[in-house]
Amino acid sequence: MATTGPQKPVSGTQGRRSTIRDVARQAGVSVATVSRVLADNYPVTHATRAKVLRAVRQLDYVANAHAKALAGTGVETLALVLDDITWSAFAQIGAGVEQEAARRGRLCLVCTTQGDRQRELAVVNLMREQHAAAVILVGGIQYTAEYRERMSQFARSLDSVGSRLVLCGRPPLGEDLPATVVEYDNEGGAYGATAHLLSLGHRGILFVGVQEGQSTADGRLVGYRRALADYQVPAVPALEREAVFQRDAGLRAVREALRERVAFTAVFAATDMVALGALEALREAGRRVPEDVSLVGYDDIPMVSELTPRLTTVHVPYQELGRTAARLVLDRREGIGGAEDRVRLSTHVVVRGSTAPPPAPVPA
Amino acid sequence: MATTGPQKPVSGTQGRRSTIRDVARQAGVSVATVSRVLADNYPVTHATRAKVLRAVRQLDYVANAHAKALAGTGVETLALVLDDITWSAFAQIGAGVEQEAARRGRLCLVCTTQGDRQRELAVVNLMREQHAAAVILVGGIQYTAEYRERMSQFARSLDSVGSRLVLCGRPPLGEDLPATVVEYDNEGGAYGATAHLLSLGHRGILFVGVQEGQSTADGRLVGYRRALADYQVPAVPALEREAVFQRDAGLRAVREALRERVAFTAVFAATDMVALGALEALREAGRRVPEDVSLVGYDDIPMVSELTPRLTTVHVPYQELGRTAARLVLDRREGIGGAEDRVRLSTHVVVRGSTAPPPAPVPA
Repeated sequence: MATTGPQKPVSGTQGRRSTIRDVARQAGVSVATVSRVLADNYPVTHATRAKVLRAVRQLDYVANAHAKALAGTGVETLALVLDDITWSAFAQIGAGVEQEAARRGRLCLVCTTQGDRQRELAVVNLMREQHAAAVILVGGIQYTAEYRERMSQFARSLDSVGSRLVLCGRPPLGEDLPATVVEYDNEGGAYGATAHLLSLGHRGILFVGVQEGQSTADGRLVGYRRALADYQVPAVPALEREAVFQRDAGLRAVREALRERVAFTAVFAATDMVALGALEALREAGRRVPEDVSLVGYDDIPMVSELTPRLTTVHVPYQELGRTAARLVLDRREGIGGAEDRVRLSTHVVVRGSTAPPPAPVPA
Repeated sequence: MATTGPQKPVSGTQGRRSTIRDVARQAGVSVATVSRVLADNYPVTHATRAKVLRAVRQLDYVANAHAKALAGTGVETLALVLDDITWSAFAQIGAGVEQEAARRGRLCLVCTTQGDRQRELAVVNLMREQHAAAVILVGGIQYTAEYRERMSQFARSLDSVGSRLVLCGRPPLGEDLPATVVEYDNEGGAYGATAHLLSLGHRGILFVGVQEGQSTADGRLVGYRRALADYQVPAVPALEREAVFQRDAGLRAVREALRERVAFTAVFAATDMVALGALEALREAGRRVPEDVSLVGYDDIPMVSELTPRLTTVHVPYQELGRTAARLVLDRREGIGGAEDRVRLSTHVVVRGSTAPPPAPVPA
């Protein structure tokens, strides 16, 4: 029997948008097959194609984002909001979002805020008005009550129109909020970096990058302290140095520690950019890396492999973080999978040339 | 005499939007004063403020972008379209656009295309539909007739709605098109880099980065050849090596030249990323930089100052390029200045540690 005209759907999708799952059920094929037919990027039999396209018509799946994009009536966008695109780690996240967006027929817009939270709120509002399929906020933050309240409103508002707020490398805003969280093991990476130095025999380890209340900095400091505690090395306040996550701040903080004659044989810089500043300060002072002082960074941005010596650091899968953020919101939008809304990726220490055992103590 | 109600404008703005110049003329003050009153970021007398605000009302200047943004009825956006945000030079341009946009109450959106020209056309179309105040295309390109035709249509279409296409570090599409061009002296930078090597005494200079038809690569090759000609050094085809602007391509191209035993004492890499690959290939082969082989890059991305030795390169004012692009379109939109639509910024060689005279010839 050839069926051509619209039919009543055999399975109910009353009162809600039909999803790719509904189409698959209606057509009696897998979700993957529907996706292949719609994307037209994989061979399927004529009969299967006909079944799927019939189900698409029956369920009015044309209203769905995927089909709409393919029909050329508009391209959905994923909006990525970050402080500064010249920051390599953030740019890597952006590239990951872009890759997944492109693979699935979406566009990626990047909005930068220079760390201005008022501007960030304005940007999120604009992206909501422009019907972004998702708004992905990237990077650590110092939450205030007012910011938290306004961003929570945006999360609910985005959700109510089928969009989604995503926190990427940023802690959750609160329980029961409709938001997706994609994190990495921030504290675990700092623990690993510190444990690496401790296991080489270092006891005086300068931590450079204290920023009280900033979520990323706080997590890295906690990991550092936890490793010290596990090795029964007391935490020394003079070894914990404030620095924002920039090269100059690292330079100043290590210069200051050297001037104060704080005793250390290793530096754990809270980011690779901070490590670059630390390296300059050590060189200025005639300290060789790693012969005199070991140096560890955090982030594993591509350029630290070009340094001499190559930098030991904590690898954060930033591209994968971006891809995952995009994948979760697009899966949710297309009704694929279990609509996961919290994922944590792991981190690990990459040992390169900037770490070694501490120098033998000079006889007193 | 206190005038409060709307009045007929004393100067005609019939049939067109009033500009900040019209307001200044109407109020009898300078454009700068109007800008200060509207931005509320500089002290002006009560009387002046009143005059300006009256002129704003009389001319219905509220329809203008500047005032609209200030009135909170919507934020204008500048759309920046580039291949890849992980490319440092492009990210620097983005930061420049962002800075100027922020300073003038606009938002900057970055759309990435992974070098896919179809995707680029789709993105420009989307930004046009979303009423971007300008669409800024960044980076070199291999023009095709079809691309040129479609992008020219976009240029006219954007212009017709008061927006603007900007080509930033990209050659003009054609004469008489409504588009703004912000360039840098691409060929001159390559000339300078090559002349620097020639003046040190190098004669065999490997150029790495030939990409026929790609505007940026072509310009750099032309500059290289022109310097050789001026120094009466013949151009040797085996010294001109193909490479896309990526690290791996530089690595492969220099490895190949070494394998073929091409004679050279210096490498001019067409970008800093290509230079990173070249450096690795030279090190693998046991060639010291700069003692055995000198190395020059192009772009002066921030990380090349962190290399050992620090890289001699051509400085391109990428941030300034971005700021200028944003400034020209916003000035045009606000009727400030002479609506310049073509600017060329200069480049210069930054001599660091990777270049030196060639080694003394080994006696035969």
